[in-house]
Order: sequence, then C-alpha cells, then structure tokens
Amino acid sequence: MRSVSIIGAGQTAFGEHWNESFRDLIGKAGLMALESSGIEGKTIQAIYGGTMASGRFVGQEHIGALIADELGLTPLPATRLEAACASGGVALRNAYISVASGLYDVVAVGGVEKMTEISVEEAGFALGGAGDQETELFHGATFPALYALLARKHMEAFGTTEEQMAQVAVKNHYNAMFNPNAQFHREITIQDVMNSGYVASPLKLLDCSPISDGAATVILCETSKAKKISENAIEILASTQASDSLALTGRKSLTELMATKVAAKLDFEEAHLKPSDIDLAEVHDCFTIAEILAIEDLGFFKKGDGGKATEKGKTSLKGEIPINPSGGLKACGHPVGATGIKQAVEMFFQLNGLAKERQVKDAKIGLTHNVGGSGATAVVHIFKKAQVK
Amino acid sequence: MRSVSIIGAGQTAFGEHWNESFRDLIGKAGLMALESSGIEGKTIQAIYGGTMASGRFVGQEHIGALIADELGLTPLPATRLEAACASGGVALRNAYISVASGLYDVVAVGGVEKMTEISVEEAGFALGGAGDQETELFHGATFPALYALLARKHMEAFGTTEEQMAQVAVKNHYNAMFNPNAQFHREITIQDVMNSGYVASPLKLLDCSPISDGAATVILCETSKAKKISENAIEILASTQASDSLALTGRKSLTELMATKVAAKLDFEEAHLKPSDIDLAEVHDCFTIAEILAIEDLGFFKKGDGGKATEKGKTSLKGEIPINPSGGLKACGHPVGATGIKQAVEMFFQLNGLAKERQVKDAKIGLTHNVGGSGATAVVHIFKKAQVK
Repeated sequence: MRSVSIIGAGQTAFGEHWNESFRDLIGKAGLMALESSGIEGKTIQAIYGGTMASGRFVGQEHIGALIADELGLTPLPATRLEAACASGGVALRNAYISVASGLYDVVAVGGVEKMTEISVEEAGFALGGAGDQETELFHGATFPALYALLARKHMEAFGTTEEQMAQVAVKNHYNAMFNPNAQFHREITIQDVMNSGYVASPLKLLDCSPISDGAATVILCETSKAKKISENAIEILASTQASDSLALTGRKSLTELMATKVAAKLDFEEAHLKPSDIDLAEVHDCFTIAEILAIEDLGFFKKGDGGKATEKGKTSLKGEIPINPSGGLKACGHPVGATGIKQAVEMFFQLNGLAKERQVKDAKIGLTHNVGGSGATAVVHIFKKAQVK
Repeated sequence: MRSVSIIGAGQTAFGEHWNESFRDLIGKAGLMALESSGIEGKTIQAIYGGTMASGRFVGQEHIGALIADELGLTPLPATRLEAACASGGVALRNAYISVASGLYDVVAVGGVEKMTEISVEEAGFALGGAGDQETELFHGATFPALYALLARKHMEAFGTTEEQMAQVAVKNHYNAMFNPNAQFHREITIQDVMNSGYVASPLKLLDCSPISDGAATVILCETSKAKKISENAIEILASTQASDSLALTGRKSLTELMATKVAAKLDFEEAHLKPSDIDLAEVHDCFTIAEILAIEDLGFFKKGDGGKATEKGKTSLKGEIPINPSGGLKACGHPVGATGIKQAVEMFFQLNGLAKERQVKDAKIGLTHNVGGSGATAVVHIFKKAQVK
C-alpha cells in the first residue's frame, strides 16, 4: 500500500440552496477542488462520491455517473458509496484504497446532499433510514430520539449536564462565525440553547445539527507525485472504519460508540500515533452529545469527562485540543453525504495554515471522525502536512 | 496489485419473497456463500454490499452496517456501493480492489434488493432514479421508455426485428428452466412475446425483466491463499468500469453503450484476452434489446449483428457463445442490487462444472457484464478457473 495525499479541496457554502440543484452543488465543489489542486480534469482517473439518501431527497440514484457526467469526466469509473451520515467518510476511504493500491494515481472524491427539497417530516423519515427501519424508525424513533437516549444514559452515568452539552453548540456556533462556508453565522449562548424547545428530551433544538444542502470535494494523489504537484499536499497517515449493530438495542454499552473506539484504535496504530499527538479534530457532532461521546471514544478525554472538558474550554479554538474549528455539523451544517468530505476539506485548510481567523495555531496533525446513524459506522482518518520535496 | 479469486458463492431464489425481509435475504445469501467457501465468518475482514434504491424500496439506508449486523460480523468495516442496476458490479469491483491492494486477504461482497414492498408505480419511480431525474423521469420517461428508444434506433439502423428481440426472452426463459433460483420456470415462445402487451413500443411485457426480491454473495480471497482454501477457486482476471452521460440526450450514439465498449476494451487488455477467448457470458438483459446491444458492444458479434446471431441460436446454451445461462435478468429475475453479484455466482458454478442441466460445456473462461441505468455505468469482469496447487 502506497502513501496517499490530498492535493486540493473545494466546498460549497452549506445551507439552503434554493437556486442550485444536487448536480450544480457537486459540480461546483468538484471544480473548486480541481482549481485548488492546480491539475486539469483529464488527470483524474476515477471518481468516488458519498451520498446518503439522494433517492428520497431528490429522486436520484446513480450518483457516481451523475458526477462524472456533470464534470465532463465520462468515461471514468465513477462510484457512489453510502454509510448513512458517514457516506463521505467511506467514499474518502475507498478512494484512498484505490490510490494506495497502485490502481490509480489521482482520483477525485466528493460528498453531496440536497436535503431541503422535501418536507421536514419526509426528511426525518429519509434520515431514519440510517438506523434500523424495522425496530426503530417504524416505531417512531427518529434520530433526535435515538441520540436523546444516548444523552440520558451519559447524564445518568457520568453526571453530564444539559449545560455542558449546550456548550458544544455554543463553541461550534462561535467557530462557524469565522467560516464563510458555514450555514450559521450567529453566536449563541448557553441560555439560548437551554431556552430552545425540546425536540427529544434532554436534546433541544439548538442541540441538533440542521438540515442542509451542500457539497465538498478533495483530490487524492499518490504522495511522491503529490509533493511534486502541490506545496499544499497533506498526507493521509491512516484510514480506518468499523461497524456496530444498526439498532441501539444491539449495543453492549450506550455510553460509548464502539465503532468509533475500534476505528480510532486501528487508526492510531496505523499512524503510529496516540491521541495526545493530535493537534485538532473534526468530529461528528450531529447532536451535541455526539461530540462529547466522540472526544471520549477517540481518546482525547477519559470516558465521562467529555462534558466537563467542554465546559472548561479545552476543546475551544484556543483550547488544548480544538474540536470542530469549521463549526462542525452543528453550525457549519450537515448535508449528510458531504460531511465526511467537508471534514477533510477543513483539514486541508488547517494543516496548510489557510484557515484564516479560525486557524488552529501550530496545526500539524489532524483527525477526522465521521459517524453513520447512531454509531453503526465510524470512519477515522489522520492527516499530516506532507513534507515538500 | 495481487491476484484475487472467488472461493464461495451463495444466492437466494429470486422472486417475490413475501415472508422474508431485506435483512433475511442478504443474511441468507451471506451464510450460503460462507458455507460454500468452507471458511468461518471470523476469517472475513471486510464487507461490501451493492444495493440500488433500498431507501425507496424499504426505507432503509446504511446497508453495509446492516449486513455486518445481520451476519454477526461487527465491528468489521462494511460499506454499501451504488451504481443503479450496476450496484452489484461496482460492489464486486471495489471489494476486488481492496483485496488486490493487499489491504485485506478475505472479504465478502453481497448484493440485495427487495422491490416488492411498494407499488409498481412507486417502483417505477425508484428505478427511474437510475436515469436523469431532471431531464428524463420528471418528464415521464421511465426505463421501458428509454430502452424503447434504444430498440427503435437499433431497428432503424440495422433492421433488427421485434422477433429477434423476442428470441432473447425465449432463450433466457428456456435457460431459467434449469436454474432452481430463477424467478420464472416457464418456457415461452416468440408468439407469446409478440402477443404480450406493449409497455413502450417496440418493447412488450415479455421483453422486460421483472421486479424481484433476492440476494447473492461471493467470498473473495487473495489467489495463492484461495488455492489452499478451496478447490473451487475461480480467479478474477480483470475488473473494469466506465461511465457515460446519465441521460440518453448526452450520448454520441444510441446504437451502442459506450460505457460497455470502454469497460470491455480495458477488461480484455487487462486479462490479455480477446472476445473469442470467452466461453460464456452473463450480460445485462434488463430488456431484450439490452442483450443485443451487449453482445455487440462486448465484441462477441459485429455491431448490428446481435439480433441475427440470437435468431440463429448462436447465443443459446449449446451455441457458439452461450449468453445468460442463468436465465439472465429477464428470467432469473432482477433484484437490481443483487444482479451484478448473481452474475459472479453463476460464473462460480459454471466454471466449476457445478451448473447441472444448464452447464455450459468446456466452460473455462467467463465474462460478466453489469449495466447501470440506460448505460451510464458498465462493469465488466473476466473469470477463469484457478489452477489448484
């Protein structure tokens, strides 16, 4: 297996795009990534795309070919991957494998979702397909309800408070103020979160990530070639993935996501690193409790300490390990299939020192963590600035 | 890139499964493949699954994790791939790449679809997502209509007749008589096809593949290890994929599928073979015209001669190149995500001489051809019996 690097990245603004179609969004992000990498489209050898539920959101499947078509890159092999909200993450990982294998030298991998074309009720059903249709969604357990169960359990086991969870949202909204591509540019307070209505107790409206449209793309290249092409190459040190039961009922524990723990353990082994080596991370905060679970399960904080660490500012932009400098899913937005790629886009900007006002100081090694459903898939990547020449 | 072989194969019957769920079907095919390979589940290192539109058919996404969960194989990395009706094909190809790369030694790859849970009208809409939603389906062009355009063009250009197309259905129904897993066990005549009602002229009901439930799975293993594990290992000599415009309006020609031609050319180069070296093929006959296009575009017959060759029996079980001994999509059935894997299952049986009454004589090298939509994706594989020891 060869070393693989990212040589270019592009992202549309996340939000409500009434005037741009699914096609427009992924086309735009693709062109931005090509421009960022400085290569021409004809250099690309294969295309990978991550989308969760385009069939329900826009009545469109066959997403790989659609992307190749939109970018004028037929007859390249073009493939869609899906793992619910980790669709971007698994697309990135399979694209990575195709280059690491020696099969291709340069590939494009995008993620896209257009979620605002259908009603919120229909979107809730589409997203519910990330859990177990037969034992969860059919009985009314939508995603806020599933994460509310995880939150309640964490509160009981470790004394995590609603205010601590609210602080995740406050921090991520603050970070998003400095991200021009973020869906929300509005600072919020703990009191704002506490006063927002309950969606599924203890989770309130401002504990939840939004419904979003958007796309993101990165260009992958074999590292020795990448260093010649781009001064901005960032190397993928590790790429791992794990699964767990689709339904919460199948889990051994509700205070941790086992798939995250397994993927993270393998990832740190592959990269020969430990959690304390990581300078910043983009983690999967679909709900505020999910970020608390993530920073514990990834090994940044001891199990049960995630809420307290957040409260103390340890995960803020200037804290000991900045989490979600992009604003995360909570405030940058969560077009589900795009999220795993957007995390890699953020790493490209951060590790190259191009993140402007949200730049994490001395960012050398970064981690991304993308979760599908209530934790049945987790994908973890570690990135490092590739040494030029 | 290492050599990769199939060491086991399993398939449920294709048809209407009122008493088995999506989960049941893929679980069953997975266990059959494990049993066929003689290995235990714990030997598997990763799972790949092909499904086209489970979100619309059964309200379920996150198919990779679902399969790992159902087979008790969490926390293995488990990923779903989609390329419309070529979802099985792209799943097989990405699983192949993961083993060829050296990342894994043994992986399972399944395909599954459960299409009968929704109305035929809704299914038509779900399948329409394989074409271009915005410029085709939205305006009423469902799949029979798109292939009817291709058929009409072929008739005009080469004098292909409705009777020649009918012969594809007659042949495939005949072959399916000997396949216990086929959806239809009923011989039909050219007159039956001609008398069946027009769905989209010139295509009649019996020119169309059915709506089906079903699943299929194969186990892939690095070849040197495969030969030690199984006497039935069949080697994948080549695995290629190509794309084309999603909508028919974007095509340079309507008398050929360019994606098939590109993928086939690359495939024969990779395998160091030519069309005349192939002993049998499973090709994508979603409509009878599709088989005629396929046998021309794959190079078995000159462009325009597919209809005549079929009429003369050259593609029958005892013809010069038997096409679709399984019964094809037309008569074995077409649970869309499962089809690309079922084709590989058929090769496993044929090349091992285990296909009983439908056995192709002296079958040594076989080809599978899986198409997404109206030809925006094509995946081609070539297989050969691996020399044992």
